[in-house]
Amino acid sequence: MMEALRKAIEEQGVGLEKSIVKVDSFLNHRIDVALSTEMGRALAAAFAEDHVELVLTAEASGIAVALTTAQALGNVPLVFAKKGDPLNVGPNVYTANVFSFTKQVMNTIRVDRSYLPEGTRVLIVDDFMANGEAVEGLRKLVMQAHCTLVGVGICVEKGFQPGGDRLRAAGIKYVPLAVVDAIEDGRIVLREM
Amino acid sequence: MMEALRKAIEEQGVGLEKSIVKVDSFLNHRIDVALSTEMGRALAAAFAEDHVELVLTAEASGIAVALTTAQALGNVPLVFAKKGDPLNVGPNVYTANVFSFTKQVMNTIRVDRSYLPEGTRVLIVDDFMANGEAVEGLRKLVMQAHCTLVGVGICVEKGFQPGGDRLRAAGIKYVPLAVVDAIEDGRIVLREM
Repeated sequence: MMEALRKAIEEQGVGLEKSIVKVDSFLNHRIDVALSTEMGRALAAAFAEDHVELVLTAEASGIAVALTTAQALGNVPLVFAKKGDPLNVGPNVYTANVFSFTKQVMNTIRVDRSYLPEGTRVLIVDDFMANGEAVEGLRKLVMQAHCTLVGVGICVEKGFQPGGDRLRAAGIKYVPLAVVDAIEDGRIVLREM
Repeated sequence: MMEALRKAIEEQGVGLEKSIVKVDSFLNHRIDVALSTEMGRALAAAFAEDHVELVLTAEASGIAVALTTAQALGNVPLVFAKKGDPLNVGPNVYTANVFSFTKQVMNTIRVDRSYLPEGTRVLIVDDFMANGEAVEGLRKLVMQAHCTLVGVGICVEKGFQPGGDRLRAAGIKYVPLAVVDAIEDGRIVLREM
Protein backbone atom coordinates (compact mmCIF):
# COMPACT_ATOMS: atom_id res chain seq x y z
CA MET A 1 0.00 0.00 0.00
CA MET A 2 1.08 3.55 -0.58
CA GLU A 3 2.71 4.76 2.61
CA ALA A 4 1.39 8.31 2.24
CA LEU A 5 -2.18 7.08 1.87
CA ARG A 6 -1.86 4.72 4.85
CA LYS A 7 -0.57 7.61 6.93
CA ALA A 8 -3.40 9.92 5.84
CA ILE A 9 -6.04 7.30 6.65
CA GLU A 10 -4.51 6.48 10.01
CA GLU A 11 -3.95 10.09 11.05
CA GLN A 12 -6.95 11.85 9.51
CA GLY A 13 -9.54 9.17 8.75
CA VAL A 14 -12.48 8.84 11.11
CA GLY A 15 -14.39 5.60 11.66
CA LEU A 16 -18.03 6.10 12.62
CA GLU A 17 -20.31 3.34 13.89
CA LYS A 18 -19.58 0.07 12.12
CA SER A 19 -19.30 1.09 8.51
CA ILE A 20 -18.71 4.80 7.88
CA VAL A 21 -15.17 5.72 6.83
CA LYS A 22 -14.82 9.48 6.82
CA VAL A 23 -11.85 10.65 4.73
CA ASP A 24 -13.27 14.06 3.91
CA SER A 25 -10.18 15.88 5.05
CA PHE A 26 -7.93 14.64 2.24
CA LEU A 27 -9.93 12.60 -0.29
CA ASN A 28 -13.45 13.76 -1.03
CA HIS A 29 -14.19 17.23 0.24
CA ARG A 30 -10.88 18.81 1.07
CA ILE A 31 -8.29 17.30 -1.27
CA ASP A 32 -4.65 16.80 -0.35
CA VAL A 33 -3.31 17.71 -3.77
CA ALA A 34 0.15 16.16 -3.39
CA LEU A 35 -1.42 12.91 -2.16
CA SER A 36 -3.96 12.97 -4.99
CA THR A 37 -1.12 13.36 -7.50
CA GLU A 38 0.76 10.50 -5.87
CA MET A 39 -2.33 8.24 -5.90
CA GLY A 40 -2.77 9.00 -9.60
CA ARG A 41 0.82 7.94 -10.22
CA ALA A 42 0.30 4.72 -8.28
CA LEU A 43 -2.85 3.82 -10.22
CA ALA A 44 -1.18 4.69 -13.52
CA ALA A 45 1.77 2.46 -12.61
CA ALA A 46 -0.59 -0.42 -11.81
CA PHE A 47 -2.15 -0.17 -15.27
CA ALA A 48 0.98 0.90 -17.16
CA GLU A 49 0.99 -2.25 -19.34
CA ASP A 50 -2.70 -2.11 -20.18
CA HIS A 51 -2.68 0.48 -22.95
CA VAL A 52 -5.26 2.70 -21.28
CA GLU A 53 -6.76 5.14 -23.78
CA LEU A 54 -9.32 6.88 -21.58
CA VAL A 55 -10.07 7.27 -17.86
CA LEU A 56 -13.74 7.18 -16.86
CA THR A 57 -15.18 8.30 -13.52
CA ALA A 58 -18.45 9.63 -12.13
CA GLU A 59 -18.95 13.10 -10.72
CA ALA A 60 -18.06 14.46 -8.30
CA SER A 61 -15.50 13.15 -5.85
CA GLY A 62 -13.79 10.75 -8.27
CA ILE A 63 -12.76 13.55 -10.61
CA ALA A 64 -9.60 14.60 -8.76
CA VAL A 65 -7.88 11.21 -8.65
CA ALA A 66 -9.18 10.31 -12.12
CA LEU A 67 -7.49 13.45 -13.41
CA THR A 68 -4.16 12.76 -11.71
CA THR A 69 -4.29 9.18 -13.03
CA ALA A 70 -4.92 10.45 -16.56
CA GLN A 71 -2.01 12.90 -16.17
CA ALA A 72 0.29 10.07 -15.09
CA LEU A 73 -0.86 7.91 -18.01
CA GLY A 74 0.49 10.52 -20.40
CA ASN A 75 -2.51 12.84 -20.53
CA VAL A 76 -5.08 10.41 -21.87
CA PRO A 77 -8.54 12.01 -21.91
CA LEU A 78 -10.75 11.90 -18.82
CA VAL A 79 -14.51 11.54 -19.11
CA PHE A 80 -16.76 11.96 -16.11
CA ALA A 81 -20.29 10.60 -16.17
CA LYS A 82 -22.84 13.22 -15.16
CA LYS A 83 -25.76 12.89 -12.81
CA GLY A 84 -29.26 14.28 -13.30
CA ASP A 85 -30.62 15.77 -16.48
CA PRO A 86 -29.57 19.33 -17.43
CA LEU A 87 -31.24 21.14 -20.28
CA ASN A 88 -28.29 21.53 -22.62
CA VAL A 89 -27.43 17.84 -23.01
CA GLY A 90 -29.04 16.07 -25.92
CA PRO A 91 -30.63 12.60 -26.01
CA ASN A 92 -27.50 11.13 -27.57
CA VAL A 93 -26.25 9.56 -24.35
CA TYR A 94 -25.56 6.24 -22.64
CA THR A 95 -27.25 5.99 -19.25
CA ALA A 96 -27.20 3.70 -16.21
CA ASN A 97 -28.96 3.76 -12.85
CA VAL A 98 -26.86 4.04 -9.69
CA PHE A 99 -28.25 3.70 -6.19
CA SER A 100 -26.40 5.88 -3.69
CA PHE A 101 -26.36 4.28 -0.24
CA THR A 102 -24.89 7.48 1.18
CA LYS A 103 -27.71 9.67 -0.07
CA GLN A 104 -30.37 6.91 -0.25
CA VAL A 105 -31.43 7.97 -3.73
CA MET A 106 -31.36 6.49 -7.22
CA ASN A 107 -29.30 8.57 -9.63
CA THR A 108 -29.05 8.26 -13.36
CA ILE A 109 -25.53 8.71 -14.70
CA ARG A 110 -24.92 9.42 -18.32
CA VAL A 111 -22.14 9.92 -20.84
CA ASP A 112 -22.42 11.57 -24.23
CA ARG A 113 -21.99 8.79 -26.79
CA SER A 114 -19.38 10.67 -28.75
CA TYR A 115 -16.99 10.66 -25.77
CA LEU A 116 -16.88 6.86 -25.51
CA PRO A 117 -15.96 5.76 -29.03
CA GLU A 118 -16.43 2.05 -29.73
CA GLY A 119 -13.33 -0.02 -29.01
CA THR A 120 -11.68 2.47 -26.62
CA ARG A 121 -9.61 0.88 -23.84
CA VAL A 122 -11.15 2.34 -20.68
CA LEU A 123 -9.85 2.45 -17.10
CA ILE A 124 -12.50 3.21 -14.47
CA VAL A 125 -11.18 5.24 -11.53
CA ASP A 126 -13.05 6.31 -8.41
CA ASP A 127 -12.19 7.51 -4.94
CA PHE A 128 -14.22 4.98 -3.00
CA MET A 129 -15.44 1.39 -3.30
CA ALA A 130 -18.19 0.28 -0.94
CA ASN A 131 -21.22 -1.50 -2.37
CA GLY A 132 -19.86 -0.93 -5.84
CA GLU A 133 -22.94 0.69 -7.32
CA ALA A 134 -21.09 3.58 -8.97
CA VAL A 135 -18.50 1.34 -10.59
CA GLU A 136 -21.25 -1.05 -11.70
CA GLY A 137 -23.03 1.86 -13.40
CA LEU A 138 -19.80 2.94 -15.10
CA ARG A 139 -19.22 -0.65 -16.30
CA LYS A 140 -22.67 -0.62 -17.88
CA LEU A 141 -21.78 2.56 -19.77
CA VAL A 142 -18.55 0.93 -20.99
CA MET A 143 -20.46 -2.14 -22.17
CA GLN A 144 -23.17 -0.10 -23.91
CA ALA A 145 -20.44 1.78 -25.77
CA HIS A 146 -18.71 -1.46 -26.84
CA CYS A 147 -15.52 -0.27 -25.21
CA THR A 148 -12.93 -2.53 -23.56
CA LEU A 149 -12.74 -2.33 -19.78
CA VAL A 150 -9.07 -2.74 -18.89
CA GLY A 151 -9.68 -2.48 -15.15
CA VAL A 152 -10.82 -0.55 -12.13
CA GLY A 153 -8.61 1.59 -9.87
CA ILE A 154 -9.82 2.81 -6.49
CA CYS A 155 -8.27 4.86 -3.69
CA VAL A 156 -10.01 3.33 -0.67
CA GLU A 157 -12.05 0.13 -0.55
CA LYS A 158 -14.33 -0.77 2.33
CA GLY A 159 -13.38 -4.45 2.36
CA PHE A 160 -16.33 -5.43 4.52
CA GLN A 161 -18.79 -4.30 1.86
CA PRO A 162 -19.32 -6.34 -1.31
CA GLY A 163 -18.20 -4.08 -4.18
CA GLY A 164 -14.52 -5.04 -4.26
CA ASP A 165 -15.08 -8.78 -3.91
CA ARG A 166 -17.67 -8.69 -6.66
CA LEU A 167 -15.07 -7.28 -9.07
CA ARG A 168 -12.48 -9.84 -7.96
CA ALA A 169 -14.99 -12.65 -8.48
CA ALA A 170 -15.76 -11.33 -11.95
CA GLY A 171 -12.09 -11.64 -12.91
CA ILE A 172 -11.72 -7.94 -13.59
CA LYS A 173 -8.30 -6.37 -12.99
CA TYR A 174 -8.99 -4.40 -9.87
CA VAL A 175 -6.52 -2.28 -7.90
CA PRO A 176 -7.50 -0.59 -4.63
CA LEU A 177 -4.71 1.50 -3.11
CA ALA A 178 -5.97 0.81 0.42
CA VAL A 179 -8.52 -1.58 1.92
CA VAL A 180 -10.33 -0.92 5.21
CA ASP A 181 -11.08 -4.27 6.84
CA ALA A 182 -13.06 -3.05 9.82
CA ILE A 183 -13.88 -0.20 12.14
CA GLU A 184 -13.15 -1.11 15.75
CA ASP A 185 -14.07 1.42 18.44
CA GLY A 186 -13.70 4.27 15.97
CA ARG A 187 -10.32 3.00 14.77
CA ILE A 188 -9.90 2.23 11.05
CA VAL A 189 -8.26 -1.17 10.57
CA LEU A 190 -6.31 -1.37 7.30
CA ARG A 191 -5.56 -4.58 5.42
CA GLU A 192 -1.89 -5.50 5.09
CA MET A 193 -1.01 -5.51 1.39
CA MET B 1 -5.28 34.42 -24.01
CA MET B 2 -3.87 30.94 -23.84
CA GLU B 3 -3.34 29.81 -27.41
CA ALA B 4 -4.25 26.18 -26.64
CA LEU B 5 -7.55 27.22 -25.08
CA ARG B 6 -8.41 29.55 -27.96
CA LYS B 7 -7.71 26.72 -30.38
CA ALA B 8 -9.87 24.26 -28.42
CA ILE B 9 -12.78 26.72 -28.25
CA GLU B 10 -12.53 27.59 -31.95
CA GLU B 11 -12.15 24.00 -33.14
CA GLN B 12 -14.33 22.09 -30.69
CA GLY B 13 -16.67 24.61 -29.06
CA VAL B 14 -20.24 24.75 -30.29
CA GLY B 15 -22.40 27.86 -30.12
CA LEU B 16 -26.11 27.14 -29.79
CA GLU B 17 -28.85 29.73 -30.20
CA LYS B 18 -27.76 33.07 -28.74
CA SER B 19 -26.22 32.11 -25.45
CA ILE B 20 -25.22 28.45 -25.09
CA VAL B 21 -21.49 27.76 -25.31
CA LYS B 22 -20.93 24.01 -25.46
CA VAL B 23 -17.38 23.05 -24.52
CA ASP B 24 -18.22 19.59 -23.28
CA SER B 25 -15.59 17.92 -25.42
CA PHE B 26 -12.60 19.33 -23.56
CA LEU B 27 -13.74 21.28 -20.47
CA ASN B 28 -16.72 19.92 -18.59
CA HIS B 29 -17.65 16.38 -19.57
CA ARG B 30 -14.72 15.01 -21.51
CA ILE B 31 -11.59 16.69 -20.16
CA ASP B 32 -8.52 17.41 -22.26
CA VAL B 33 -6.03 16.60 -19.50
CA ALA B 34 -3.02 18.35 -21.03
CA LEU B 35 -5.10 21.48 -21.62
CA SER B 36 -6.51 21.31 -18.09
CA THR B 37 -2.97 21.12 -16.70
CA GLU B 38 -1.94 24.07 -18.85
CA MET B 39 -4.95 26.13 -17.75
CA GLY B 40 -4.07 25.40 -14.13
CA ARG B 41 -0.56 26.67 -14.75
CA ALA B 42 -1.89 29.83 -16.37
CA LEU B 43 -4.24 30.57 -13.47
CA ALA B 44 -1.50 29.83 -10.94
CA ALA B 45 0.82 32.22 -12.77
CA ALA B 46 -1.84 34.95 -12.70
CA PHE B 47 -2.09 34.65 -8.91
CA ALA B 48 1.55 33.79 -8.21
CA GLU B 49 2.11 36.94 -6.12
CA ASP B 50 -1.04 36.60 -4.08
CA HIS B 51 0.06 34.03 -1.50
CA VAL B 52 -2.80 31.65 -2.23
CA GLU B 53 -3.21 29.16 0.61
CA LEU B 54 -6.26 27.24 -0.61
CA VAL B 55 -8.21 26.77 -3.85
CA LEU B 56 -12.00 26.63 -3.56
CA THR B 57 -14.42 25.40 -6.21
CA ALA B 58 -17.89 23.86 -6.42
CA GLU B 59 -18.62 20.35 -7.59
CA ALA B 60 -18.51 19.04 -10.19
CA SER B 61 -17.04 20.44 -13.35
CA GLY B 62 -14.76 22.97 -11.64
CA ILE B 63 -12.82 20.28 -9.82
CA ALA B 64 -10.42 19.39 -12.65
CA VAL B 65 -9.04 22.88 -13.30
CA ALA B 66 -9.15 23.73 -9.59
CA LEU B 67 -6.93 20.71 -8.99
CA THR B 68 -4.42 21.59 -11.70
CA THR B 69 -4.32 25.17 -10.39
CA ALA B 70 -3.63 23.88 -6.87
CA GLN B 71 -0.88 21.63 -8.25
CA ALA B 72 0.75 24.58 -10.01
CA LEU B 73 0.52 26.70 -6.87
CA GLY B 74 2.77 24.19 -5.09
CA ASN B 75 0.12 21.70 -3.98
CA VAL B 76 -1.98 23.99 -1.82
CA PRO B 77 -5.11 22.17 -0.64
CA LEU B 78 -8.24 22.12 -2.77
CA VAL B 79 -11.70 22.27 -1.22
CA PHE B 80 -14.81 21.67 -3.27
CA ALA B 81 -18.18 22.82 -2.00
CA LYS B 82 -20.75 20.04 -2.12
CA LYS B 83 -24.32 20.15 -3.33
CA GLY B 84 -27.36 18.59 -1.68
CA ASP B 85 -27.46 17.04 1.75
CA PRO B 86 -25.94 13.55 2.21
CA LEU B 87 -26.43 11.67 5.44
CA ASN B 88 -22.84 11.48 6.63
CA VAL B 89 -22.14 15.22 6.75
CA GLY B 90 -22.78 16.93 10.07
CA PRO B 91 -24.40 20.29 10.73
CA ASN B 92 -21.04 21.98 11.18
CA VAL B 93 -21.06 23.59 7.73
CA TYR B 94 -21.18 26.91 5.92
CA THR B 95 -23.95 27.03 3.32
CA ALA B 96 -25.06 29.26 0.45
CA ASN B 97 -27.86 29.07 -2.10
CA VAL B 98 -26.94 28.89 -5.79
CA PHE B 99 -29.44 29.11 -8.60
CA SER B 100 -28.44 27.02 -11.61
CA PHE B 101 -29.67 28.58 -14.84
CA THR B 102 -28.57 25.45 -16.72
CA LYS B 103 -30.65 23.13 -14.60
CA GLN B 104 -33.25 25.72 -13.51
CA VAL B 105 -33.04 24.63 -9.88
CA MET B 106 -31.86 26.16 -6.62
CA ASN B 107 -28.98 24.23 -5.07
CA THR B 108 -27.50 24.59 -1.65
CA ILE B 109 -23.72 24.36 -1.59
CA ARG B 110 -21.85 23.74 1.62
CA VAL B 111 -18.35 23.43 3.03
CA ASP B 112 -17.37 21.81 6.28
CA ARG B 113 -16.26 24.64 8.58
CA SER B 114 -13.03 22.94 9.51
CA TYR B 115 -11.81 23.06 5.90
CA LEU B 116 -12.02 26.86 5.65
CA PRO B 117 -10.03 28.04 8.66
CA GLU B 118 -10.45 31.73 9.53
CA GLY B 119 -7.91 33.96 7.81
CA THR B 120 -7.03 31.56 4.99
CA ARG B 121 -6.12 33.23 1.68
CA VAL B 122 -8.56 31.65 -0.78
CA LEU B 123 -8.54 31.58 -4.59
CA ILE B 124 -11.89 30.64 -6.17
CA VAL B 125 -11.53 28.66 -9.40
CA ASP B 126 -14.27 27.44 -11.71
CA ASP B 127 -14.58 26.27 -15.28
CA PHE B 128 -17.30 28.66 -16.40
CA MET B 129 -18.56 32.16 -15.65
CA ALA B 130 -22.01 33.07 -16.91
CA ASN B 131 -24.49 34.68 -14.53
CA GLY B 132 -21.98 34.23 -11.74
CA GLU B 133 -24.27 32.45 -9.30
CA ALA B 134 -21.79 29.70 -8.43
CA VAL B 135 -18.94 32.11 -7.75
CA GLU B 136 -21.28 34.34 -5.76
CA GLY B 137 -22.20 31.34 -3.59
CA LEU B 138 -18.54 30.48 -3.09
CA ARG B 139 -17.80 34.11 -2.13
CA LYS B 140 -20.50 33.89 0.52
CA LEU B 141 -18.83 30.78 1.98
CA VAL B 142 -15.47 32.62 2.04
CA MET B 143 -17.06 35.57 3.84
CA GLN B 144 -18.88 33.39 6.37
CA ALA B 145 -15.57 31.72 7.17
CA HIS B 146 -13.78 35.06 7.62
CA CYS B 147 -11.27 34.05 5.00
CA THR B 148 -9.56 36.44 2.59
CA LEU B 149 -10.64 36.20 -1.04
CA VAL B 150 -7.51 36.83 -3.13
CA GLY B 151 -9.35 36.49 -6.42
CA VAL B 152 -11.33 34.46 -8.90
CA GLY B 153 -9.90 32.44 -11.81
CA ILE B 154 -12.11 31.10 -14.60
CA CYS B 155 -11.49 29.12 -17.77
CA VAL B 156 -14.24 30.51 -19.99
CA GLU B 157 -16.40 33.59 -19.38
CA LYS B 158 -19.56 34.32 -21.31
CA GLY B 159 -18.90 38.05 -21.61
CA PHE B 160 -22.47 38.82 -22.63
CA GLN B 161 -23.80 37.58 -19.29
CA PRO B 162 -23.35 39.63 -16.11
CA GLY B 163 -21.18 37.47 -13.83
CA GLY B 164 -17.75 38.63 -14.99
CA ASP B 165 -18.62 42.34 -15.10
CA ARG B 166 -20.11 42.13 -11.62
CA LEU B 167 -16.77 40.90 -10.26
CA ARG B 168 -14.87 43.60 -12.17
CA ALA B 169 -17.21 46.27 -10.79
CA ALA B 170 -16.67 44.92 -7.28
CA GLY B 171 -12.92 45.47 -7.62
CA ILE B 172 -12.11 41.80 -7.15
CA LYS B 173 -9.03 40.44 -8.89
CA TYR B 174 -10.63 38.39 -11.62
CA VAL B 175 -8.84 36.39 -14.32
CA PRO B 176 -10.78 34.62 -17.08
CA LEU B 177 -8.55 32.69 -19.48
CA ALA B 178 -10.98 33.26 -22.36
CA VAL B 179 -14.03 35.47 -22.88
CA VAL B 180 -16.79 34.68 -25.36
CA ASP B 181 -18.26 37.96 -26.61
CA ALA B 182 -21.05 36.57 -28.75
CA ILE B 183 -22.44 33.67 -30.70
CA GLU B 184 -23.02 34.58 -34.34
CA ASP B 185 -24.64 31.96 -36.57
CA GLY B 186 -23.28 29.16 -34.40
CA ARG B 187 -19.79 30.65 -34.40
CA ILE B 188 -18.19 31.49 -31.05
CA VAL B 189 -16.69 34.98 -31.12
CA LEU B 190 -13.77 35.34 -28.69
CA ARG B 191 -12.61 38.62 -27.15
CA GLU B 192 -9.10 39.76 -28.08
CA MET B 193 -7.04 39.88 -24.89
